[in-house]
Amino acid sequence: MKIDKPRQYVVENLKYALNPRTIAVVGASRYPGKVGYQVIQGLKDWNFKGRIIPVNPRADTVHGLKAYKTVADIPPEIDIDLVFVAVPSVLIKMVLESCVQRKVKLVTVASSGFKEVGRGDLQNRLTQYCRDNKLALIGPNLLGMGSPYSNFNCGFIPYLPIAGPVAMISQSGANLLAALGNSQTMRFGMSFFVGLGNKADVDFSEFVAYAGQDPNSKCVSVYIEGLDSEEAFVHAARSVVPHKPVVAIKVGGSTIGVKAAMAHTASEAGPGDAHYDKVFERAGVIRATTWQQFLDISLALGLMPPLKGDNFVMITNGGGSGLLACDHFERSGMPMKELPIISGGLSQRIRAYMPAFGSPLNPVDIAGTANHIQYHGALIQAIRDPNVDGVIVSTCPTAITDVAAITDAVIDLKKRFGYLNKPIIAQLQGGAECDANILRLRDAGIPAYRMPEQAVDAMVSLRKYAKIQEGLSTGAAAPKKASRAS
Amino acid sequence: MKIDKPRQYVVENLKYALNPRTIAVVGASRYPGKVGYQVIQGLKDWNFKGRIIPVNPRADTVHGLKAYKTVADIPPEIDIDLVFVAVPSVLIKMVLESCVQRKVKLVTVASSGFKEVGRGDLQNRLTQYCRDNKLALIGPNLLGMGSPYSNFNCGFIPYLPIAGPVAMISQSGANLLAALGNSQTMRFGMSFFVGLGNKADVDFSEFVAYAGQDPNSKCVSVYIEGLDSEEAFVHAARSVVPHKPVVAIKVGGSTIGVKAAMAHTASEAGPGDAHYDKVFERAGVIRATTWQQFLDISLALGLMPPLKGDNFVMITNGGGSGLLACDHFERSGMPMKELPIISGGLSQRIRAYMPAFGSPLNPVDIAGTANHIQYHGALIQAIRDPNVDGVIVSTCPTAITDVAAITDAVIDLKKRFGYLNKPIIAQLQGGAECDANILRLRDAGIPAYRMPEQAVDAMVSLRKYAKIQEGLSTGAAAPKKASRAS
Repeated sequence: MKIDKPRQYVVENLKYALNPRTIAVVGASRYPGKVGYQVIQGLKDWNFKGRIIPVNPRADTVHGLKAYKTVADIPPEIDIDLVFVAVPSVLIKMVLESCVQRKVKLVTVASSGFKEVGRGDLQNRLTQYCRDNKLALIGPNLLGMGSPYSNFNCGFIPYLPIAGPVAMISQSGANLLAALGNSQTMRFGMSFFVGLGNKADVDFSEFVAYAGQDPNSKCVSVYIEGLDSEEAFVHAARSVVPHKPVVAIKVGGSTIGVKAAMAHTASEAGPGDAHYDKVFERAGVIRATTWQQFLDISLALGLMPPLKGDNFVMITNGGGSGLLACDHFERSGMPMKELPIISGGLSQRIRAYMPAFGSPLNPVDIAGTANHIQYHGALIQAIRDPNVDGVIVSTCPTAITDVAAITDAVIDLKKRFGYLNKPIIAQLQGGAECDANILRLRDAGIPAYRMPEQAVDAMVSLRKYAKIQEGLSTGAAAPKKASRAS
Repeated sequence: MKIDKPRQYVVENLKYALNPRTIAVVGASRYPGKVGYQVIQGLKDWNFKGRIIPVNPRADTVHGLKAYKTVADIPPEIDIDLVFVAVPSVLIKMVLESCVQRKVKLVTVASSGFKEVGRGDLQNRLTQYCRDNKLALIGPNLLGMGSPYSNFNCGFIPYLPIAGPVAMISQSGANLLAALGNSQTMRFGMSFFVGLGNKADVDFSEFVAYAGQDPNSKCVSVYIEGLDSEEAFVHAARSVVPHKPVVAIKVGGSTIGVKAAMAHTASEAGPGDAHYDKVFERAGVIRATTWQQFLDISLALGLMPPLKGDNFVMITNGGGSGLLACDHFERSGMPMKELPIISGGLSQRIRAYMPAFGSPLNPVDIAGTANHIQYHGALIQAIRDPNVDGVIVSTCPTAITDVAAITDAVIDLKKRFGYLNKPIIAQLQGGAECDANILRLRDAGIPAYRMPEQAVDAMVSLRKYAKIQEGLSTGAAAPKKASRAS
């Protein structure tokens, strides 16, 4: 249901959705295969440290934990932060009443059978009840949520992501699952994640506002099928972007997609796709087009400072990678500049680290013979140059390339020159040794990718964010100064 | 140097570049670190079965093999198919003279120091000498070439790709290396590969024409920085595309890219990027934009038949993946159609394999609860329907998804219904189990990808190829009927 702006009591309570001290599971079950069993199993498997209270009218213990017949039966001395509900939709009103009575901070409804199957009336009545009683409700038809920082994995989610900078707020369960799986295999770090489902009460905007306050979240990434409360979203994003970037991917813009989105998470057939470009521009939100791009730029924005100017240098041992990159930069409206235009003596200083037949243009092709010492030297020349705003380092393994040693050089570069607050992005394209070192770089806080175009998308997003910050700081609203550090 | 069309003697001899019975290595060295050492080591490491003859004026044996002082010293009873040259540029003329005298089929020059460093005059003189004597020359400044079908890996290449359908013809060494590395890790099968370098004599067009005749090559994929002989390329491609698809990626179109391409492989600053769109259209070549797309569509075109109409069905357990896909189809100019428009009873027949709350639109969301039996049933309904031209199967692992079992179902689908000659494309998005099953699918001959948009690009390319074939078969030239099988 529509809201005008993020509600304070919701935003304040969302921390209990991701790090509850006590969680009650209504519909807790003794039978594997039941949702109410899997949820508790998941909490235990991922080493959740808080208290778990099963609620089941026909069992004394569930999963070896003392169970209570109803929420009302839980002893009053126990404060309940979060109630997770997995019972049929007709029983939910009763559960909500107990929650209100017990002053529960937040309730999460996993059950389906609401607006997505035409029961919008039932969903709206429950929402209204919650709002009247200031009980924040997440869902229904919710997949799950959690945070690696609190070992909290609550819902139907087979993965807990690795800890990192990206807050992942998703309307789709499936894509969230995919991103979470990707988190482990690709070392894509998240601060928290939530699959919002029907978002009957708690809205995108409130999770965005919460992420803005969460110290572990450095980039706020949102997958949207439909915005019920556009103004609330703009309001929330504008409050966050002076401090942290917000990235969005909006799907369902195609003719058939509008129908599919309605069936999927009960999103209304909204205005066309071009409208959302305007909404995101107004909100200061960076829009991604494909899911890969969404992940790639979220990681870069989470790990790196904004790119403060257009003077970026790419250093590569592969002319082909350089060409793919500079074409893609131009397609992205951010053409590369030649080294002499960026900085007077830089070409000559970099020349010391490349053979005579290498090419000190930009991309700088230090040639297939380049070793880690040459990479290190050339990168240091580039990043130390006061006219250079950021660097991309690119490697294709030739028969003599030591990818691990070059990776060490890049990690050292970040350690020594991170204080300069200039983005460093890596691209390693090849076989297993490249994939392994991409993960090492990500673990060291450096956005690293397989494809040149991915690295370009990442750098372009860092420039977009710098421009958004500039626009805000010169705007009428005069928001607080940006305060992100690398 | 420019040619008007592929030369017959070159095309005929190219098989000796990829499967020589005897190779002489001029500049063979006893010292690791030297090119002339590494080349022989590589041939041995990858179990090349042909005869290797080292040529070295100061050694009797190299790598335990009898060496000869010059090519002329090799006993006349030995037929030499291929001579690989890794000596300084000033010595090459002398080597070429011996090759002509010995009626060598083909010579490959790895040495640099030619047009890419301003010695275009020297390069042109050598080329003219070769052409006057009908000795085909590959290179100079060549990275390497080889084929997994002949265990032949010749040059500076740390990987031999897995055997498969894609002929990879690259002007860039670095991108070729990257693709080769990717071949092993991502099960991207190649029929042969070549890094052309300066292409002083042997041209793209001749390798394209050769790939057209090579039975192992099902898709011809070309990375281009500059086309010296545009008409020859168009001529070669048009002779191939009635039987096999040709994919190209052309880089260096950006302002700075033109300069970088010149420095990299001595490509002339040619006409602008839009010009190449026309060239590729005239040639019947499918153009890729990014390197990822180039790899993705090459694999699909190599493994699958063309998509003969616009009636394709996507079956997914993730509404979000479906939405990303249908938006990307629309962006690609190929919007999805709803099931009832594709085929009367198909919705109802598929409904039997999904829960009531699933969505039988298109994409068909068979819901997060879908198991492999439901996938199998829904896929069979779709592919057997005479109105359906092709299928995409998409999986996001929920807590209950058995990705391996669904993969088995897809492999079975191809086995049982492959005879229908309809493309099957898979997309598995998640953690390690998805990545592992993507590789299993690729090994079974099914193009499989991580991202929905990659699967879309693949399907779009199969439609493009069908349209190219249709255009040719109705054109004046009346080429032979397409004869690809899945």
